[in-house]
Amino acid sequence: MNQLKAKKAIESFLLEDLGEQDLSSSIFDKDAEGVGTFVAKSDGVLSGVQIIEWAYQLLGGNFSVKYGKKDGDSLKKGDIIATVKGSIPTLLMGERVILNLMQRMSGIATLTKRAVDQLNSGVTQIADTRKTMPGLRQFDKYAVTCGGGKNHRFGLYDAVMLKDNHIAYAGSIEKAVAAARAKVGHTVKIEVETETEAQVVEAVKAGADIIMLDNCPPEVIKERIKLIPASIITEASGGITLDNLHTFKDSGVGYISLGCLTHSVMALDISFNLEGGTKTWTY
Amino acid sequence: MNQLKAKKAIESFLLEDLGEQDLSSSIFDKDAEGVGTFVAKSDGVLSGVQIIEWAYQLLGGNFSVKYGKKDGDSLKKGDIIATVKGSIPTLLMGERVILNLMQRMSGIATLTKRAVDQLNSGVTQIADTRKTMPGLRQFDKYAVTCGGGKNHRFGLYDAVMLKDNHIAYAGSIEKAVAAARAKVGHTVKIEVETETEAQVVEAVKAGADIIMLDNCPPEVIKERIKLIPASIITEASGGITLDNLHTFKDSGVGYISLGCLTHSVMALDISFNLEGGTKTWTY
Amino acid sequence: MNQLKAKKAIESFLLEDLGEQDLSSSIFDKDAEGVGTFVAKSDGVLSGVQIIEWAYQLLGGNFSVKYGKKDGDSLKKGDIIATVKGSIPTLLMGERVILNLMQRMSGIATLTKRAVDQLNSGVTQIADTRKTMPGLRQFDKYAVTCGGGKNHRFGLYDAVMLKDNHIAYAGSIEKAVAAARAKVGHTVKIEVETETEAQVVEAVKAGADIIMLDNCPPEVIKERIKLIPASIITEASGGITLDNLHTFKDSGVGYISLGCLTHSVMALDISFNLEGGTKTWTY
Amino acid sequence: MNQLKAKKAIESFLLEDLGEQDLSSSIFDKDAEGVGTFVAKSDGVLSGVQIIEWAYQLLGGNFSVKYGKKDGDSLKKGDIIATVKGSIPTLLMGERVILNLMQRMSGIATLTKRAVDQLNSGVTQIADTRKTMPGLRQFDKYAVTCGGGKNHRFGLYDAVMLKDNHIAYAGSIEKAVAAARAKVGHTVKIEVETETEAQVVEAVKAGADIIMLDNCPPEVIKERIKLIPASIITEASGGITLDNLHTFKDSGVGYISLGCLTHSVMALDISFNLEGGTKTWTY
Amino acid sequence: MNQLKAKKAIESFLLEDLGEQDLSSSIFDKDAEGVGTFVAKSDGVLSGVQIIEWAYQLLGGNFSVKYGKKDGDSLKKGDIIATVKGSIPTLLMGERVILNLMQRMSGIATLTKRAVDQLNSGVTQIADTRKTMPGLRQFDKYAVTCGGGKNHRFGLYDAVMLKDNHIAYAGSIEKAVAAARAKVGHTVKIEVETETEAQVVEAVKAGADIIMLDNCPPEVIKERIKLIPASIITEASGGITLDNLHTFKDSGVGYISLGCLTHSVMALDISFNLEGGTKTWTY
Amino acid sequence: MNQLKAKKAIESFLLEDLGEQDLSSSIFDKDAEGVGTFVAKSDGVLSGVQIIEWAYQLLGGNFSVKYGKKDGDSLKKGDIIATVKGSIPTLLMGERVILNLMQRMSGIATLTKRAVDQLNSGVTQIADTRKTMPGLRQFDKYAVTCGGGKNHRFGLYDAVMLKDNHIAYAGSIEKAVAAARAKVGHTVKIEVETETEAQVVEAVKAGADIIMLDNCPPEVIKERIKLIPASIITEASGGITLDNLHTFKDSGVGYISLGCLTHSVMALDISFNLEGGTKTWTY
Repeated sequence: MNQLKAKKAIESFLLEDLGEQDLSSSIFDKDAEGVGTFVAKSDGVLSGVQIIEWAYQLLGGNFSVKYGKKDGDSLKKGDIIATVKGSIPTLLMGERVILNLMQRMSGIATLTKRAVDQLNSGVTQIADTRKTMPGLRQFDKYAVTCGGGKNHRFGLYDAVMLKDNHIAYAGSIEKAVAAARAKVGHTVKIEVETETEAQVVEAVKAGADIIMLDNCPPEVIKERIKLIPASIITEASGGITLDNLHTFKDSGVGYISLGCLTHSVMALDISFNLEGGTKTWTY
Repeated sequence: MNQLKAKKAIESFLLEDLGEQDLSSSIFDKDAEGVGTFVAKSDGVLSGVQIIEWAYQLLGGNFSVKYGKKDGDSLKKGDIIATVKGSIPTLLMGERVILNLMQRMSGIATLTKRAVDQLNSGVTQIADTRKTMPGLRQFDKYAVTCGGGKNHRFGLYDAVMLKDNHIAYAGSIEKAVAAARAKVGHTVKIEVETETEAQVVEAVKAGADIIMLDNCPPEVIKERIKLIPASIITEASGGITLDNLHTFKDSGVGYISLGCLTHSVMALDISFNLEGGTKTWTY
Repeated sequence: MNQLKAKKAIESFLLEDLGEQDLSSSIFDKDAEGVGTFVAKSDGVLSGVQIIEWAYQLLGGNFSVKYGKKDGDSLKKGDIIATVKGSIPTLLMGERVILNLMQRMSGIATLTKRAVDQLNSGVTQIADTRKTMPGLRQFDKYAVTCGGGKNHRFGLYDAVMLKDNHIAYAGSIEKAVAAARAKVGHTVKIEVETETEAQVVEAVKAGADIIMLDNCPPEVIKERIKLIPASIITEASGGITLDNLHTFKDSGVGYISLGCLTHSVMALDISFNLEGGTKTWTY
Repeated sequence: MNQLKAKKAIESFLLEDLGEQDLSSSIFDKDAEGVGTFVAKSDGVLSGVQIIEWAYQLLGGNFSVKYGKKDGDSLKKGDIIATVKGSIPTLLMGERVILNLMQRMSGIATLTKRAVDQLNSGVTQIADTRKTMPGLRQFDKYAVTCGGGKNHRFGLYDAVMLKDNHIAYAGSIEKAVAAARAKVGHTVKIEVETETEAQVVEAVKAGADIIMLDNCPPEVIKERIKLIPASIITEASGGITLDNLHTFKDSGVGYISLGCLTHSVMALDISFNLEGGTKTWTY
Repeated sequence: MNQLKAKKAIESFLLEDLGEQDLSSSIFDKDAEGVGTFVAKSDGVLSGVQIIEWAYQLLGGNFSVKYGKKDGDSLKKGDIIATVKGSIPTLLMGERVILNLMQRMSGIATLTKRAVDQLNSGVTQIADTRKTMPGLRQFDKYAVTCGGGKNHRFGLYDAVMLKDNHIAYAGSIEKAVAAARAKVGHTVKIEVETETEAQVVEAVKAGADIIMLDNCPPEVIKERIKLIPASIITEASGGITLDNLHTFKDSGVGYISLGCLTHSVMALDISFNLEGGTKTWTY
Repeated sequence: MNQLKAKKAIESFLLEDLGEQDLSSSIFDKDAEGVGTFVAKSDGVLSGVQIIEWAYQLLGGNFSVKYGKKDGDSLKKGDIIATVKGSIPTLLMGERVILNLMQRMSGIATLTKRAVDQLNSGVTQIADTRKTMPGLRQFDKYAVTCGGGKNHRFGLYDAVMLKDNHIAYAGSIEKAVAAARAKVGHTVKIEVETETEAQVVEAVKAGADIIMLDNCPPEVIKERIKLIPASIITEASGGITLDNLHTFKDSGVGYISLGCLTHSVMALDISFNLEGGTKTWTY
């Protein structure tokens, strides 16, 4: 993540939740100070801990953060992720946005880590897809790397992916690759989606940089990879789930991309406990 | 959703995915026309069908949409949700954003519907929380209503929620409610979170508009509700899951708010199938 | 006001006035330091004093502020509101925006205070409306609270107001309330505008949270309020001016909402006096 | 006003009022059609009638407008300004923003017209100042021209105004003018604020383009103007009100600039009457 | 270019030039219609012709465009690029922004075409760099393709470029490539900048996707390329100008990237001739 | 330049180049510190040195800058412009945007200085035009002043320029000037473009503030200027290049405006040399 872009997004998230004002916080004195802790409530992998700092910087006023964990760290239930000290109303104003985002990101990191562990391969790596939540791609993709996964392309702008529609339109894989190569720059990779052995052979001949094997069981992948020279990256996708991932352990494919890492995220449970600021109230 | 605000968000989502350009679409002729269908790939409840139209309006050019289903409709695997006709590159440029958003929204609607059905109560309603994805609150909250749920407050700005921190700081529930009442306008409701019977009694006395019963089993809810006059709305939250929801059927509480409706969403599987535009390619 | 949102607005206000540059300030040396004072030039109530600090933070560079008064304070002609020390060109660049906004806000606070005093009721409170200046609602509504008034809804999104059009369309007040109740969440209040006694009775029966008595003289209000149980909030509006407000003193209505507090504001006169920076000029 | 800039502002105004949605409009069917009329409720001068069209274009959907009056027209109580036909929820969503803005603008135009009439001079013109509402300068300044007034500079960026601080810092009017002339381009006018006869003489010698006579009664203006060649524009400001404006009729000054035209605006009363859409409601 | 992103940029360009209004256009009647032609005033290659349409769409009102040339076309002095018909004030409001942008883009296309022609190689292609004008990268890079050049990476986000600093920090080219490979996704290419033969050998061994030969004369390039297998793309940069480009004709390198294509652009001369709207003026 | 507006633009420039992240910088440790120097690689005039500081402030983190030169200073090849110390990844993230902008600005300043020197006149000044790069006007215009030039109008909003179209439409120069005068405020200057002696005479009579002599050789300018009283500013434009500028030395015209100062800019060569951060790399 680049801080400049991330903070602009977080600013808009805070405004979404705050609107004109936090009505409930109106009961606190401005100088009421408190200490809050972000605590893991289940086991997992942490991602997005810097959101805490960036959100409170945006909300203004004095505060300090002490981190107990950093991104990529394993979390055990009860682990203290971070402790923040500052004005109580400010701490509460940032709480929900921080939790919503960090819980999602840690959920993604945790799921990715589980996929990596399940696969348990020294050869094959886990990658994400463009099935991220709109507006959250930078956070979702970063979270995948915290869990040990790799990023696939970030958008339509940083790699070519030729699918059935492109191939059908061009007339053949070779024509599609040649057409793309003629248009895009030399720093851009071209990936071709293949469904049959014949297509794999054609993609190799066409000079694809990456060949995706769509919807293939492990045995089929093993066979098809033999047709692909080592200089071409291989990727498998489609029909692969957390449950059958272990069967791909020895498939030999370079990457397995999983949409579920980001399209159906189970938030990791993290709580925020605020203490302090008790006062005798008179009016 | 209001169209003006929704379209501004969708515009930023499209820009996130498109960047400077869709590199892969560079192989199509500008006037290549195609027809695409959005098809349900599993059963569920539809939400967000207008995203299709709004996204393609933003991408420009001529296109037409014919809807097969509308928001709130039940979907069976294979149902055609909508058919769009337009330029192939444009159809592909919008595809991923539309699917990512509509699948999430339909996932939320589907889960909400399941919660409503599981609860199966003529009295108690299912409500959401502020545990939505940052930047997507308007979409998430709308999706909940498509599944038959009700919206809790939209942010910190449209209702008061007095929790343990507020009560501790003020000194008592009564003081907290009075302090809030003195600050906020008369169009704003005040909700109080209670953990004990004593707190319920105090909240009633304090004049809360809504009393939340935190982390109570159904039997306890039944008892506590007896202490609350009918003019005060009751809400249960905490420790309630899709699995135990049916045990709350006769608890008599007005609303059960569930964070899981939006914080851990399983995307509903929807696919986009594009046809047409085949051409003889020569270069 | 929340600082994050307020500062974004103030930033756009500064850019509106500054454009590419302050041409006149081009004659100052960059390190010319001066001291400026914001002084009340007529009696009133202060609102918006933090604008000073926020504007100069946005303009950058070193500066310090010392406040003589705080929001809600009474001002006498000649009172020093704040003293700022900083670079002369920066002080001048912020001057007009700060004054334009703080004068309007203090004008609103002053008018609200006058309304509260004129009414002089221990029961009835003064409230604002949505008749604020476009783009300035957060400032206008906050200013009303500085003068002792209460905020009505902030926009179309945080409370329901059923007027003649809604009632006519639904067919009756009961149908309109029921329709709204079926759509909106349980944290949202429903207000019904009534013009006749029959409508008041119907609104009570329909379960409105707030009943507005439109265009009623004090005696009529007194009668109608008898028909409304204490648990329903009452509001009067229409035909009430600063001049006849005292006649509503004993009407017993909960709130009187006044559009004039914000739609026709007399700016409170505040001046900015800058000293220092004299230098011998040679070129 | 330029449409591109005005519509961007109006979009943000609509979003301010609408937030996520118009809760009250949720009771209407989407295809409920209505006809609304904007009617003058007091006499005045119209300004901002195009806001109606721009706001409804931004809100989307089909609608049509028929104008009864155009900007600058005199309004009599009861005059129909415009009639709009469209979806009822959309008509209501735009109503308040349109009224708030058009009422302010027409209030400014009306006040300006009154000033022009009161002055009743064939020589002297009425001008505005930078004392406009933050965020509304383009609307406020345009409204002044609808009432027959002239625009002073739009911001700090389109003309130089040398006041006491600038003169003191430079050491003399001549030095201040020379310093400014050395910095700014030849398309920029330099105005000098003068308080004494000596300063007027100095400003003439310094080659000011515009000389402002600050806080002078009509007789003094007459005298000082004799010292100023015809090629230099003269302006009076300070201590001039709607009440004493007529005494300046024969002062001979070129322009009288009045802050009150925009800093303390009495909204012109305009109402929106909506009809239609009645239906039998069953649920 | 993607239209959505390009139009957002053009909107901000129009606002930059227009500010509150086009003062000079105030003299035209609103319904004055005119016809304008964009005409080439020197020979070159056209780029950016769609800017015309996009700018006038943004300015609103009715207009029609008829294109005489399309992007990539050769222009001869006198060629009509496009003819637009619409309101005179609108035509003039868009003129300068359209010309400034289209002249720059056509200047880039023209220069690129000249470079391609000068090189006159069937093997080596001309590419751009990140030395584009801030805020104009999408336009600059697109213009390069109109002139027959290829795009290098669009920013820091779509390819890795390891330069002296990266290599020094990592300790060696191999370590730098390995470190980058471990971080970035498999769709991202890694380019290594080399200065010596030894570095070329190391980069090959390290598995770079692209090897840049920095500051090498043609003969040296020829030698070094022999060390690089065909599967690795080669690029030359540094010390190459329009004047010596022809000496690289047979160097055999894959790409020559030229900063001068975009950092020092000679605008192609294009004029806008407006006719029509003459009227007899009386006042 | 005003810092608030300039930094907003620079923020968008950084985001354009950075996208989601600097992929190459991922190989550095976060705490790797380095020292970078901006060095002139050819002779010229510096402009935009503050960009360095503003860009690094926006990118966050600790850094310090020490300036060797300031805007307007002459640069000799090898001169150190500024030295920055900070985190290596941050220094690299800002490098390209800073260079692209500062090189353009210094190129403009250098060209302007050359024009001023070439003209070598104590009477005539060099001015810019609106032929700046879209989105960069504030930077381009400021750079002109660093080179000793003067700014013409900033946009369509701060001065009137009546050209052939305006004059033809109005019927005559006198009518055009009168029409403009009737619309625009008294702080706005009116410039008239003239092509013939008759037009010059008419423009004088019409009371133009500035008369532009279009496409006139020096001798003709000399003659026409005799027809123009000293109180009217004169400007020459059209057909004037760096090459024939010296022939205008004694023409007596007030200003010569040159589009080439900003429409065809040769970037001044400036390099960024980064040192430090070497480390032993193990993994």
